Amino acid sequence: MTTQATVKTPTTRLNGLDVQAAFDTIDAIKADPSIARFQFRARNRWIDGGENVSAIRDFYGAGREDESRTDDFVFTNGEPPVLLGNNEGANPVEYLLHALAGCVTTTFVLHAMARGIAIRELSTELEGDLDVRGLLGLDESVSPGYERIRIRMHVTADCSDEALNDLLDYTQKHSPVCNTVCRPVPVVIERVA
Amino acid sequence: MTTQATVKTPTTRLNGLDVQAAFDTIDAIKADPSIARFQFRARNRWIDGGENVSAIRDFYGAGREDESRTDDFVFTNGEPPVLLGNNEGANPVEYLLHALAGCVTTTFVLHAMARGIAIRELSTELEGDLDVRGLLGLDESVSPGYERIRIRMHVTADCSDEALNDLLDYTQKHSPVCNTVCRPVPVVIERVA
Repeated sequence: MTTQATVKTPTTRLNGLDVQAAFDTIDAIKADPSIARFQFRARNRWIDGGENVSAIRDFYGAGREDESRTDDFVFTNGEPPVLLGNNEGANPVEYLLHALAGCVTTTFVLHAMARGIAIRELSTELEGDLDVRGLLGLDESVSPGYERIRIRMHVTADCSDEALNDLLDYTQKHSPVCNTVCRPVPVVIERVA
Repeated sequence: MTTQATVKTPTTRLNGLDVQAAFDTIDAIKADPSIARFQFRARNRWIDGGENVSAIRDFYGAGREDESRTDDFVFTNGEPPVLLGNNEGANPVEYLLHALAGCVTTTFVLHAMARGIAIRELSTELEGDLDVRGLLGLDESVSPGYERIRIRMHVTADCSDEALNDLLDYTQKHSPVCNTVCRPVPVVIERVA
């Protein structure tokens, strides 16, 4: 309606994401799919007992080594007393829930943006069931990992319930962490000198 | 050799773990397998764009709600600029690597203790390959999650190479996060009012 509206369209940022940058990225990947390949990394060091610390900084993506981070992200795993620790940090299976919650949320928000849906509020609650007989090797018929994980999502947005349900279904199929959990992903462990 | 040595045996603590408490736990689970059932939880809230924050505190295990933690553990997911963020935190797929590193390490140290092996040093380096065409829905034949994850483990201990290799093989089969990644685990997402 005005010159200003033409220069700065309502879709410049949506859900905190730069819409033009997102679609530029998609166009660039369509032109050269090799730039979609990423490699993420972590380094971890055992401290004592159930305590260990990871440092995360560098990764490869968009055709080059990323240099945007000047410091490591540092995270401490620990265990509660009932699992022989002193609550030095959240434990690894809890960090997995954090990763899953974040990935489902970001995937939801990203594809909402692509569909022109403005998210107002979004929160999740996660529960994962696990039988430690698997970890302890007390019953080889018990899987050591999570039996199942439930996510309850609370979301309000400027669209219909049907549109939100469709977006949630799409999110579940396209979230990298959700896909890594739902699908068998090979983990290769090699001991080096 | 001395009275003191008899009272305080060398196996009281090994690898930072209370050996007696560990075997007491195993005996208790053998007597009542229901106490091996745990439920871990996380609550997450979207901030903006690729930024969201999890709070982790309570869990159920050993037959009751745990009350050992007086504060939440709080973790921030973010994204680097190349993935439309401002490095507000590590991203979800990086947190997954941290969870995996920690779980493999703790499982290794725990079963080393059970075998009477003293670990001197233990560190790991992880790499995970991922093609963001899956996340973006640009090619439905590309899995959104990790294609594979490699772990390089550096470990020194008071045992043979053969014993370490056997322990590593056992660890890979019994680590809860490794098992959750290697095996298809159902994730149920429900939208609630």
